[in-house]
Amino acid sequence: MATYNDVPKLTNPAENLLDGTDVFLFDIDGVIWKGDSLIDGIPETLQKLRAANKSIFFVTNNSTKSRASIQTKFASLGLPDVPPEEIYSSSYAAAAYLDQKKMDSPTGGGSMTFRESGKKVYVVGERGICDELDRHSIPWIGGPNDDNKTPSMDSGGMVPHDPDVAAVVVGFDRNINYYKMQYAQLCINSNPGCEFIATNLDSTAHLTNAQVWAAGGTMVGAIKGCTGREPTVVGKPSSLLIDSICGILGLEGGVGGTGRKRICMVGDRLDTDVLFGRDNGLKTVLVLSGVTTEEEVRRLENNIVPDFYADSIKDFFME
Amino acid sequence: MATYNDVPKLTNPAENLLDGTDVFLFDIDGVIWKGDSLIDGIPETLQKLRAANKSIFFVTNNSTKSRASIQTKFASLGLPDVPPEEIYSSSYAAAAYLDQKKMDSPTGGGSMTFRESGKKVYVVGERGICDELDRHSIPWIGGPNDDNKTPSMDSGGMVPHDPDVAAVVVGFDRNINYYKMQYAQLCINSNPGCEFIATNLDSTAHLTNAQVWAAGGTMVGAIKGCTGREPTVVGKPSSLLIDSICGILGLEGGVGGTGRKRICMVGDRLDTDVLFGRDNGLKTVLVLSGVTTEEEVRRLENNIVPDFYADSIKDFFME
Repeated sequence: MATYNDVPKLTNPAENLLDGTDVFLFDIDGVIWKGDSLIDGIPETLQKLRAANKSIFFVTNNSTKSRASIQTKFASLGLPDVPPEEIYSSSYAAAAYLDQKKMDSPTGGGSMTFRESGKKVYVVGERGICDELDRHSIPWIGGPNDDNKTPSMDSGGMVPHDPDVAAVVVGFDRNINYYKMQYAQLCINSNPGCEFIATNLDSTAHLTNAQVWAAGGTMVGAIKGCTGREPTVVGKPSSLLIDSICGILGLEGGVGGTGRKRICMVGDRLDTDVLFGRDNGLKTVLVLSGVTTEEEVRRLENNIVPDFYADSIKDFFME
Repeated sequence: MATYNDVPKLTNPAENLLDGTDVFLFDIDGVIWKGDSLIDGIPETLQKLRAANKSIFFVTNNSTKSRASIQTKFASLGLPDVPPEEIYSSSYAAAAYLDQKKMDSPTGGGSMTFRESGKKVYVVGERGICDELDRHSIPWIGGPNDDNKTPSMDSGGMVPHDPDVAAVVVGFDRNINYYKMQYAQLCINSNPGCEFIATNLDSTAHLTNAQVWAAGGTMVGAIKGCTGREPTVVGKPSSLLIDSICGILGLEGGVGGTGRKRICMVGDRLDTDVLFGRDNGLKTVLVLSGVTTEEEVRRLENNIVPDFYADSIKDFFME
């Protein structure tokens, strides 16, 4: 006979959750939409949360799109009112991380921004990362420009690389190739102080509705494999994003700080969304509108237990 | 002032080494040849070792060539007498591992070989692995056949994969692409019991004389990244190869067994060759004919200390 843990399902009305929360962080795929279809009741729910004066952020490890192109998708699915500032994609997170990074000045006169330093980024990834770097005026090379390159490996062959690359950003890249791996390896292994930044470590993702696909952790694993270095992760489950949101909203920072429990992470995955929320001291809600079943969340062997679970975020306002 | 450890340089005559050793394992690049040039005095040295009745094996993590094609290179450089049986490439090691693997019989009637099982291998790697699998009559798919494939990732898109793949072998692949990563991910994550075999985990290698290149560990890292699985490594520093050589020669097995100290690993790298020898209970010699300097081997901070070091294996028989 199966035994279950005592994770509570949200009951009507969900006042406990709403009264105790100022900020909702929503994973997007499986929570707001599934593939190319909006989940039932989402526009009304978001409207009610805004009317109740809740802050909202959409948090996705997808690095292939910029904030602007995710906003376009929101609008195309009937949510025209989501501003780019509410969208925390891992492509944005990578650019924001570099934007606020302090570099040693080459002349020894204190610190400067990445932009001021004259350094550049090498991108192993798709358009979304490049667009966000552009929006932050951070120079970059690589990315889609290197999709069709092949290194010369005959006797004496080499890939010349730019010594001014001070960070390599790695995200999902369906056009990954050996040239990009070698370029990233050269920058990280031979440019002094070069950073290795990963948008996320997700092993797989539902990139189409037909099967599970090798995800961003694949490309990051390749660069770990040729450098022996651990990356700085900017997407979930990194705390960088929570620090940034706490800063914007003036909430008390630090895991265990009282401000953290006024933030609620809502997602459809236990091992990414709920774990991310729990490890960062947030409140957590698992929704069944994505990949996780009620059986899975209630199973006694599951040790990533959310504070609540619900069929979908529509149930935040049950009648 | 620099301080040094007391690793001895081989002195004339190197009787201690020769008398105490029955089997010599030679790394190839940096020991026998460098790029496309034979190192000075090698043919005479090998001849003297054979005349002294020493067993010789050549051990390389290179998986891009088969035993036969490495033999061809030996011959082209003036060593026509090296038989394929003396060449332990990691491509050979992968095929030999699968050749001796026992599988559960699908009908429940005991165990059978991989070949008898009707299963096949998916290869992420170059020609050398495929040639060795062919030579062992083990069916394989992938490898160079998938160099130019691109998965369909439109709505409903998928990569159909073969449920009879029971092992994925990953080695260096300059034509690595996302299709191969996704195919390997599907086999390892969804074919029950599918093995993940790595030829080696080397992060970099001197693939041309002009620079250091991302090596087999890169491709292995990618497949680790999308599966969360640790591979079975068949090349250096795995002990599989030593077990195999001990078996062939009837030497006492097991690290710490007296047979092991009659085997000497000779290489030009501390962190691969000498470490491999030490961890497997072998005698070790570091030669300076490759990438390591005398300063590096004698540095006090170096804690991978060989039993001896020498300018090259020519010094085994100094006049």
